[in-house]
Amino acid sequence: MKTKRIVIIGAGFGGLRAAQKLAGADMQVTLIDRRNYHLFQPLLYQVATAGLSADEIAYPLRAIFRAQKNLEFLLAEVSGVDFEAKTVLTDRGLQPYDALIIAAGAAVNFFGNASLERNALTLKDVGDAVALRNHVLGMFELASNEMDPERRRALLTFVVVGGGPTGVESAGAFAELIRLVLGKDYPRMNIEDVRVILLEAAGRLLNGFPEKLQQNARQSLEKKHVEVRLETKVGGYDGSLLTLADGTTIPARTLLWSAGVRVAGLMDRLGIEQARLGRAVVTPELHLANHAEVYVIGDAAYLEDRGTALPMMAPVAVQQADVAVRNILAGEAGQKQQAFVYRDPGSLATIGRNAAVARIGRWQFTGFMAWMVWLVIHLVGLIGFRNRLIVLINWAWDYFFYDRAVRLITKE
Amino acid sequence: MKTKRIVIIGAGFGGLRAAQKLAGADMQVTLIDRRNYHLFQPLLYQVATAGLSADEIAYPLRAIFRAQKNLEFLLAEVSGVDFEAKTVLTDRGLQPYDALIIAAGAAVNFFGNASLERNALTLKDVGDAVALRNHVLGMFELASNEMDPERRRALLTFVVVGGGPTGVESAGAFAELIRLVLGKDYPRMNIEDVRVILLEAAGRLLNGFPEKLQQNARQSLEKKHVEVRLETKVGGYDGSLLTLADGTTIPARTLLWSAGVRVAGLMDRLGIEQARLGRAVVTPELHLANHAEVYVIGDAAYLEDRGTALPMMAPVAVQQADVAVRNILAGEAGQKQQAFVYRDPGSLATIGRNAAVARIGRWQFTGFMAWMVWLVIHLVGLIGFRNRLIVLINWAWDYFFYDRAVRLITKE
Repeated sequence: MKTKRIVIIGAGFGGLRAAQKLAGADMQVTLIDRRNYHLFQPLLYQVATAGLSADEIAYPLRAIFRAQKNLEFLLAEVSGVDFEAKTVLTDRGLQPYDALIIAAGAAVNFFGNASLERNALTLKDVGDAVALRNHVLGMFELASNEMDPERRRALLTFVVVGGGPTGVESAGAFAELIRLVLGKDYPRMNIEDVRVILLEAAGRLLNGFPEKLQQNARQSLEKKHVEVRLETKVGGYDGSLLTLADGTTIPARTLLWSAGVRVAGLMDRLGIEQARLGRAVVTPELHLANHAEVYVIGDAAYLEDRGTALPMMAPVAVQQADVAVRNILAGEAGQKQQAFVYRDPGSLATIGRNAAVARIGRWQFTGFMAWMVWLVIHLVGLIGFRNRLIVLINWAWDYFFYDRAVRLITKE
Repeated sequence: MKTKRIVIIGAGFGGLRAAQKLAGADMQVTLIDRRNYHLFQPLLYQVATAGLSADEIAYPLRAIFRAQKNLEFLLAEVSGVDFEAKTVLTDRGLQPYDALIIAAGAAVNFFGNASLERNALTLKDVGDAVALRNHVLGMFELASNEMDPERRRALLTFVVVGGGPTGVESAGAFAELIRLVLGKDYPRMNIEDVRVILLEAAGRLLNGFPEKLQQNARQSLEKKHVEVRLETKVGGYDGSLLTLADGTTIPARTLLWSAGVRVAGLMDRLGIEQARLGRAVVTPELHLANHAEVYVIGDAAYLEDRGTALPMMAPVAVQQADVAVRNILAGEAGQKQQAFVYRDPGSLATIGRNAAVARIGRWQFTGFMAWMVWLVIHLVGLIGFRNRLIVLINWAWDYFFYDRAVRLITKE
């Protein structure tokens, strides 16, 4: 019998896990990604806030799969899938498959607001993070010899939109970068001129967290001088003036948009049934209803758990990767497939030094305890001993010396 | 009496040293650079060869000068100097001075060859190094599924032009990256398809080194499978075909040009007397003959030592910074200025693992001893304990595990 070919699209948390789970299987695996590295996205905001450098949270895919003899990596952009011919179309040729796992992930969602799309900064990729770091440090350089007080205020007003974990963590990290580090770099600058504003359209931060933790996160942010504004919607942004939905304006040269995601563009081109945010509707066994050999996992997949859509989070992607691979192997062996059941590991968000909120099962933590939990979980999540060691050194250094190493404005 | 204003242009080895030497002086110092960091350029080729990340060899200038109360940093591009009005012109306003130190450094010199300027890669800045790394790793990705053997050979032919320390160190580092690391990343690729070629127009490598070391360097490179071709001049390069001066051609998609430098563009716009490679002619006291308050140091300055021009190397710049500052302070105190005398600390170049050549005073080392000398000198030269620690960890890791951490193709 001919060896079956499995193609995996995307090397995020879901695709990576699926590829690793197929180690040793009697199948020829092709993993396709448009980047040559796996990115540990939960720490991307620390690249943007000058705490880590990109290579510490990115790991070359070929290095990860050196020992996995049945896997081939292809650096390519996927343009579509021919479900009838069972072929993936890429900018580097066709890839036929017997089974396909689509783990294409998510992209930023501006909800059609063109002014935001043009002028807001985002935080989805290494390039975004470095651009955001360069931009924020550049604002300080410009402010350092700006004589006009109004223009200086606009240069030093940093708006983060979106009260989810990325928004909360970014706002906290920017506040600390500014108060603890840049304040010393620019001794002539009045630190009270600097504002970090976190806007959230809903009535609370960290939707989905227990209410006690939501309130704790808000208090922690405010203690770090972040202005938290709930029930505040953005109207438009021209790069220097933010207009809220109620018409009021905030002069600000920096706006980080972390208020929405939707599936990667590829998903819209597949001609399959899509649910909210463009996610592909899958069966409980995680495949398409009319293409049993095509699995969709992670952010790209739409599945409900007790009436609500599964969140677009790494644990869902990883657990679905396991089930998808198990179902593919079961199908090969003529066994029964299993339905996906989500085991919620909890929720975590850090606000900064000694401050985080965590729910693990029924336990809730705040403050230093939650922060330690956050540290350990994120350190363990990194790939490679060297990355863990160097990130740990960087964190310890920053903690004890109130420093950030990567305060570089790079032009590449 | 009014506090004197000193402006320093450039924060390379010379400008940085001058600024630090002025700590505690009763003068207002302004340090201008178009980057916000000091770059440890001798290790830049390790960024290009995926061994180090940029932040490990770059250090934020504001962090270096936090404690130096009499210094202000200005991130700006200098467009010219008005010597009559004693004012430096920048894209962020005018900077008046009582004394000026020009330490503008060097840029790549293509000797007017437009095809090289358009198509060759260079290694002068962080951006160059990252672009070179992305390019070389990209060639391997393209080669990995290129079926045409001729096109594959061109993708896998890496030409380095210039047998000075940068060319020798780059060629050695690329050969090791390919043989020791990428060979394992691309198990299906025939490593014998890969060529690293080092071209040098003169009849020897490492001009200025003792002959025994020149020969040793050549042998070490050849042992690492670098093809060394002496007395070979480049004619033109169109991005995929290299034409030598004698008309022979080499298909190669990568050409690193490290065969020439000249002063930074600013020097040509100052209207001052220039010598070979555009360097400003200075008095033995290091100032301009007709502007005693304008000092020029390092690569930007032309001064002879026993009949030959001082080399464009960090030790010259650092020693000249000391003398320039001493002469400025002596002039203020009405004391006699001193003439610059170069103390040659020796020469060093590494070829790779356990292989380097070194001359220190009258002693000459090769092999492991020279390599250890090289390691210690470069580690000590880095700024900041954290950078030293992390570079040391990276070197140790790469040495013991034959690895390179930063094999990332980043698009920013």
